Parts: sequence; C-alpha cells; structure tokens
Amino acid sequence: MASKASIPKGTRDFSSLEVSKRQYIISTIQKHFKTFGFKPIETPTFENSDTLMGKYGDEGDRLIFKILNSGDYLKKANAEAYENKDSVKLSSSISEKALKYDLTVPFARYVVQHQNEIDFPFKRYQIQNVYRADRPQKGRFREFTQCDADVIGSDSLWQEVEFIQLYDAVFTSLKLEGVTIKMNNRKILSGLAEVIGESDKLIDFTVALDKLDKIGEEGVKKEMLEKGISESAIDNIKPIFNFTGDFSQKIDLLISLLADSEIGQKGIEELQFIQRALDKMPLQTAKLDLDVTLARGLNYYTGAIFEISAPEEVKMGSIGGGGRYDDLTGIFGLKNMSGVGISFGLDRIYLVLEELNLFPQEIEETTKVLFINFGEKEALYALKAISKLRGSSISSELYPDTVKMKKQMTYADRRNIPYVVLAGGSEIKDEVYNLKNMKTGEQNKFSLKELFAHFSD
Amino acid sequence: MASKASIPKGTRDFSSLEVSKRQYIISTIQKHFKTFGFKPIETPTFENSDTLMGKYGDEGDRLIFKILNSGDYLKKANAEAYENKDSVKLSSSISEKALKYDLTVPFARYVVQHQNEIDFPFKRYQIQNVYRADRPQKGRFREFTQCDADVIGSDSLWQEVEFIQLYDAVFTSLKLEGVTIKMNNRKILSGLAEVIGESDKLIDFTVALDKLDKIGEEGVKKEMLEKGISESAIDNIKPIFNFTGDFSQKIDLLISLLADSEIGQKGIEELQFIQRALDKMPLQTAKLDLDVTLARGLNYYTGAIFEISAPEEVKMGSIGGGGRYDDLTGIFGLKNMSGVGISFGLDRIYLVLEELNLFPQEIEETTKVLFINFGEKEALYALKAISKLRGSSISSELYPDTVKMKKQMTYADRRNIPYVVLAGGSEIKDEVYNLKNMKTGEQNKFSLKELFAHFSD
Repeated sequence: MASKASIPKGTRDFSSLEVSKRQYIISTIQKHFKTFGFKPIETPTFENSDTLMGKYGDEGDRLIFKILNSGDYLKKANAEAYENKDSVKLSSSISEKALKYDLTVPFARYVVQHQNEIDFPFKRYQIQNVYRADRPQKGRFREFTQCDADVIGSDSLWQEVEFIQLYDAVFTSLKLEGVTIKMNNRKILSGLAEVIGESDKLIDFTVALDKLDKIGEEGVKKEMLEKGISESAIDNIKPIFNFTGDFSQKIDLLISLLADSEIGQKGIEELQFIQRALDKMPLQTAKLDLDVTLARGLNYYTGAIFEISAPEEVKMGSIGGGGRYDDLTGIFGLKNMSGVGISFGLDRIYLVLEELNLFPQEIEETTKVLFINFGEKEALYALKAISKLRGSSISSELYPDTVKMKKQMTYADRRNIPYVVLAGGSEIKDEVYNLKNMKTGEQNKFSLKELFAHFSD
Repeated sequence: MASKASIPKGTRDFSSLEVSKRQYIISTIQKHFKTFGFKPIETPTFENSDTLMGKYGDEGDRLIFKILNSGDYLKKANAEAYENKDSVKLSSSISEKALKYDLTVPFARYVVQHQNEIDFPFKRYQIQNVYRADRPQKGRFREFTQCDADVIGSDSLWQEVEFIQLYDAVFTSLKLEGVTIKMNNRKILSGLAEVIGESDKLIDFTVALDKLDKIGEEGVKKEMLEKGISESAIDNIKPIFNFTGDFSQKIDLLISLLADSEIGQKGIEELQFIQRALDKMPLQTAKLDLDVTLARGLNYYTGAIFEISAPEEVKMGSIGGGGRYDDLTGIFGLKNMSGVGISFGLDRIYLVLEELNLFPQEIEETTKVLFINFGEKEALYALKAISKLRGSSISSELYPDTVKMKKQMTYADRRNIPYVVLAGGSEIKDEVYNLKNMKTGEQNKFSLKELFAHFSD
C-alpha cells in the first residue's frame, strides 16, 4: 500500500526558491561573522539527554524532543514508572538522547569539552537547526534555524561595541534599513530594583517591566503590586514608564535615578563606554536605543542585553537578540568564563524581507540558459557549448528529451530561465548558436566564442 | 551538579578547521550542481514514521532513530505490546516521528506531495544530514551528510551523460585526479542472468557477482553454486570473471555474450549511447570504466548504475554512487516517474583530500589581520581601520582586552593570523598603522589608505 505523502506538524519542506532566499540571508550573516573574525563550529543534531535536561526549566524539559533508545529499549525501563504508566518518569530510562533545543547549551558543552584545544578568547559562530516540541502556530515551528555568534573568555566591552556594529553591517547588507538595536543592561535593572528597595524581587520586577509595551503602564503597575512590590516603590521609578529622549538624555535620567546604587552606576558606565565608541564610529543604517524595560532571559544575562526590532512599518517584533552572560559554562564545570553573544532570527528576517520586497531579483533565476533538444546530433553540438559555459560557472542546461519545442519553451518559462539557445541543422552547418532572450523575444546568432563572451560580461 | 561534557557515540563536534574543510567540499559540489541546472530543496530532519518505515528493509527499520511522542505518550501505548514488554511492537504506538535515514525516500515523498507545484523534469539537489542507529566504527557515523542530485520525470540517457560529466567536474575542481567512474547497467545484469537460464535467481546471481573484488572468482563461484546456480551456467559467463580491456573492448565482449538476450542488447545500446557522447566530449581528469560486477542496491536500480572509486593510491573504496530507478515515487502513489541520481560521500572525500594533502592552504587562515589592543584610545583608532577592512570583506579583529603584547601575539600565532597591526601613541600621532607580517617578521608603516590597498590587491 502506498504511504501518504505528508510531513509532521510544525516542520517544513523548502522549495528551491525558499532555499535560495534562506541561503541569501544565511550567507550574508555568515560573511559578516567571518569578516568580524568569528570561526564556525558545528555540534551534533542530538545530544546526550543529561546535557540538555534541566537547562531550560520545566517547560523547556517538556519541549525537548527525546529519541527512543535502539534495540530492546524496554529491558532497561524503570520498573516503577513502567508499572505506574508514568510517561515523564519512564522517559529517562528508555531515551538517552535528545534533539538540540538551542545552540547555546551545546556551545557551552563544546567549550568545556574542548577547552584544551581552544585559544581563548574564543570567537565562534554557529548556524544550525534546533528543535522544539512547541504547539505549532503561525511563525512558530518545531524545526528552525538559529544563527549565533558568541565570544567567550573575555569581559571586554569592545565585544558589545562590535556586536552592535555587526548587527548594523548585516542589516545594511540585507538593505533592511531602519532596524532598531534596543539595548539594556542587567546592572541597570538590578540598580532600579535596589533603589526602590526591592532587590529581592528583581525577577518579578523585571518580568513585569518587560511587559510595558504589551500591557501598558497600568498593567505593569498592577502586576508589580500583585507581586508584593509597594506602591511607593513603584512611584520612585515612575520616570521609566515614560522613558523618552535620545540615548544621552536617557543616560542622564538614569544617572539621577540610580545615584544611590553602586551596581546601577556600573551599568551606566558600561552603557557610556559603548556610547562613546559609537559616537566616534556612527552606525550605517541601524538606530541604537536604550530601553530600560528590556529583560529577555534575565536569569541568564549579567551585563548587556540586546534586542532587534524590525522597521516600524512591519509588525514583526524581535528579529534578533543577545547579551552578556558570566557563567554559561559553569553548568558543565568550567567556572569564570565571561561570554557575550547575539543571535539572528532567520525565519522572521525572511518574513520581513519578503514583506518589504527586499530579496534581490537574481535569486529567482537559477539556470541562465536552456539549450533546446532537437535530437542526438544537435544535443551533442549543444553540450559542447554547455560544457564551456559551465566551466565558467554559467549555469546551463540541455532539455533532457527530444520533445515538442513548445513543451521545452514552457519549461524555460516556468523556471524563469532568461535565455534559450536554438541550434538545429542550419546552425550546426554555420557553426553558430541562435540565442533567444526570453523577456524581449530578441534572437541573435553567435559563434561559440561570441556566445561565451555574451555571458561572461 | 555539573553535567559531564560529552556527546553521543557516533556523533561529532566539528572544529572551525573541520567545518571550513567540509564547507570547501560542499560548496564545490554545490557550485557544480547549480551550473548543471539543479535546484536545491530541503526536507525536515524528521519525517512521519510511516513515510520511512518499511522502505529500507527490516535492517533499515531497526536502524531508524525514532522520536518519543511528547506529553503523556503512554496513554496511547499499545496495550498488548505494553503487557508483553515488546519493544518493537510498542514503538509505533509511542513514537510517530523518525529521523531521516537517507535523502532519497524524503525526496520521493516531496515529489509526490508537491507534484502540482513542480515542473517536470525536476532537477533537484539536496545536501543535508541523515541519521542511522548503526554500530559506530571507524568512518561510520550516526549522523552524516549526504550530497545528492537527481532528475525525475525523464528517461533520457543524456542525464547519465551529464552525471558522468558532473562527477568529473567536481573531482577536477577538488584537484582529485585519477578518480574512476565505474559504470554498469541493470539490463546487462538481467541479460547475463537470462543467457545462463537463471533469470529467476537474478538477485542471488548479482549479489554474488558484486563480491568479485572481495572474495575472488572461486569465492563467487562457490556462493553461486550454494544458491543453486548450476556449474554449466557459471561456465557460460566465465569471461566476465576476467573482464579486462578498455570500454570498447568490454562492450564487444558483451555483444557476443549477450547476443541472445533482448534486455541485454538494450543495456548494451544504453552503454553505447553514453560512450558515443563521451567520445566527443572527453572527461577532464576522471576515467570511465565498465564494471559488469557492479550491482549496489540492485532492487532499486533499473538502468545505469554508477560507483566512484578514489584514486588507487588511497585505500578508501567508494566515494560516491548512483543510478537510474524507474519507480521511486510509486511507494507514495505516483507511478511511472523515471529518475536518475547520484550521490557524493562527503566524509570519505574529506579523508581522501586529507590523505593526499589537497585542501587549499587558505582554509586554515580565518582572520587576515589582528589589531593589538593598547587601550581605549588606541582601540578606537584601530577600529576605524578595522571597519574599513571589514567593509571590503577583509576579515579583521581587535584583540578584545588590553593585555600583555606577548599574549596578544600568541593568540595571532595560534590562530594562523598572517598579519598583526601595532598602532600606539606615536602611530596615532603620525596617522599610520604599523603592519607586521607574522611569517617574515617584516614591519611597514602604512597610512589607512595604503593599508587598505595592501589587503585589497
């Protein structure tokens, strides 16, 4: 019986046009990763379960795809869990491997495992797929590509400066202008919690503040009150609910707000260092903004926090993000390795470029010239030219079968092939190739040399 | 507690040098796939289990990695299998997805699923990872990369001609000379079985014959006898055990051997068509050879069969292969789609290039120039030059921290960075950059413009 042709929920087939568009974004990002001195690594699609489990919280554990052990896997099944039909408890005894959930934890594992082969500071990039058993929905997939760059083993703020330049370079290359690089610093958030006397509620405070653009000032205040943050405390940081002005003006406001917090002052100094550097080297097309509500995975970040917003005319949310973390490799036993990294959201960047019509036209053109197949002798004559063109990386094809012209022309048309060569008996006699421009309809007879010159320009 | 940093058996981390070398091979193959008119597709890492199960035989089913269902997966567990602790029977009720085992079956599924969007003949390439729960051993991995190109929807023999040219083009580009493209045809094998009156034992006959280079003439004869092929039948095809000479001489021998087999004659005609074409368009560096013992996955191939041997001085076996199949998409309900395809064995090609020292030197160079970090002011001065170099894709880095010169120079050394720039107070005053060639030790002072020109040549 024939199997049904379908794919799992939340996964995707990519057509050649989609692959080419994705490849265009990936190779642009990759090019800049390289010119900024990052080196590629790759890690396996699946890791040992204990490398991943417990690293992303309970929700994360649930969303990790687990691979069933091979062979007679029930032999080692946990007897009690089996008896009780306890799916969660049974898993670890019948599954030892799991698909990677992000690139960060495998990277930390890589750094620890290969620490003796690595020269620190280690600047690596990694562009690979990750897997999450999330409920599939629009724009959320169970398999998607992450593009990460990190530096580990240096706490220099020049990295933050360079990552901002890197974001600017990539989006400028993609012709995506008007991107906003939003920045914050964990130390600013700690400072704010400190000056209002709620340091012990730092997480609740920042989780609520992070929602400002979604639920508004009243919503945030309500959530803070519910979490036990006092009304007077909230009043003390009122200015951040209407935090406007340019980068310098915002810094000035923070200086007065955080005057009594040592950690807050440290955060300000870090922001000022970055601002000073970028004043001397202005960004090309991106805007830098200070957003004190930005928290992202706060538990994780210890210094700078980044998030990229698509241009305002596109409703898309974040298309990238990152930040500094001081103890990523500690979970695998290597302490005191400061790191900072950023990520590009490939799927969302794709949607933004699509919406703004920013993919270059050439992407749709795969084959440059199709040679019509009139029979064995003619095909051989065509292949002589084809070999020469291919030798110079000019993509060319012989239509495989000797079928009606119309069918062959339709094939060229449908595949967006811009040129067709017709070479039958009379052309072979005259040693020429009849080249037809599919857009204009224009036809010209060329010698092999002229034909080659035509495409080599 | 810190988790142990390790990866599953049979999987690999790739260092940046390894990624770069793999990328060199992949991008060479990809470039030629494109110039030959193939378009890329990608399919998900995991498929629905029923897409894969039963397509690779019992052994294949066993080697497919199965993904445990999410949530309370035991709820739907097959009660009888659960009761009997039957691992094999239980699998299909607790696992609905599986990692892909090769690229061919997902491709067939893709063609059937998207048949209305595809213009046939469909020339696609696909470079993705596949997964097998094989016992890991030297050169055999549980995750590895396949590079496939196929044409589906045409039975033209020009495809076979072009695939031979494609192999030749790729290996010539990789500077891997002396590769042998071994060819056979299923119809020749059918013809041989027919003329010795053993058509019903075709599979046993070819499986035995395929082992000639491993177990020798006596070994093959012994196996054929054991399978019930008569001694006199074997005597009839004696010449193929010492099948020498060039392509034409071998064809001549086959003409006399297969005079009484219609299908055999058809096979000879196909080989002759290909020979005629390649006589007119000689290969660049590869040799074409006719090997009548070549069978590979016979059940699968219906016409041409290809296998690539590495140059003789390397003991490696096959580094690629392929052939024509007439009913690949039938398993998903789309009949009468003739296809032909080839595959490149990335891991083995990698080992061959390594052994013959054929990877270009430039691969080891990732960053072109490192700027020494003498402090904030100097770093800013350096970054001005770095931005300009990066703008022209010249990979450059600022050492992130202001540490001892020696440490920074060691970093450049270890990472094979060929140039270092030293720019301190006096250079800033003179508006120059002091460029040091790490190989020769030579130092030169350049203006920014001169520095840029130096690297742009």
